[in-house]
Amino acid sequence: MMKKIEHIGIAVKDLEAANETYRKVMGAEHYKTEAVESEGVITSFFKVGESKIELLAGTTEDSPISKFISKRGEGIHHIAFGVDDIQAEIERLQNEGFRLLNEIPKPGADNKLVAFMHPKDANGVLVELCQDKE
Amino acid sequence: MMKKIEHIGIAVKDLEAANETYRKVMGAEHYKTEAVESEGVITSFFKVGESKIELLAGTTEDSPISKFISKRGEGIHHIAFGVDDIQAEIERLQNEGFRLLNEIPKPGADNKLVAFMHPKDANGVLVELCQDKE
Repeated sequence: MMKKIEHIGIAVKDLEAANETYRKVMGAEHYKTEAVESEGVITSFFKVGESKIELLAGTTEDSPISKFISKRGEGIHHIAFGVDDIQAEIERLQNEGFRLLNEIPKPGADNKLVAFMHPKDANGVLVELCQDKE
Repeated sequence: MMKKIEHIGIAVKDLEAANETYRKVMGAEHYKTEAVESEGVITSFFKVGESKIELLAGTTEDSPISKFISKRGEGIHHIAFGVDDIQAEIERLQNEGFRLLNEIPKPGADNKLVAFMHPKDANGVLVELCQDKE
């Protein structure tokens, strides 16, 4: 089962400008910036309670984030849930009939193993599973 | 400042079908259903850590949720942050230059006082502030 909201991913055009906007929204600075080169994104993180806000900007035109913004504009891109055992969760969800975009967890930002569910199976919501790397 | 993610609001067409989908996604049942007649919505809640997932379905054609779905399809509708003093947060955000859709908090679902920020000021994200009613 899902243990907590690990983070909310927000697609933005300009990471530096969005860092300044979200510093004001959150009332706190981002604590980390990280590039995920395999995804063509640069990300920044804000802590809020047990969760994070992750701002994502595309670094290449064919980055999934750049494509999302071209199609829909800036906005919420995904919800990530923290889980204890990502492989077991992938199997649980597959047994419930959900399609996983990653049947094998892949490395994500912030030292996590991650897997995404197909948004068409979850009312248009892109759901990410996250497990801390050991 | 924002204390935690209070909930994520997801706009759905059919609340009963979505309850079943999210029971499977979350690995847990929703614990409450509540109509907010002033907004033309019916909502259900799932607990996850210190946060909730709130499914929202419109009950009238001119409900903001029905309009959102007509325009963008089902999906994530808003992020709500828990705050200790909503009136102070509204003033803090206004002083930072943000436009609030509610300058005076209004009653929301789940025994909260709520206020929304203008999504154009926050990279397309509809941000809700939530304070527990005393």
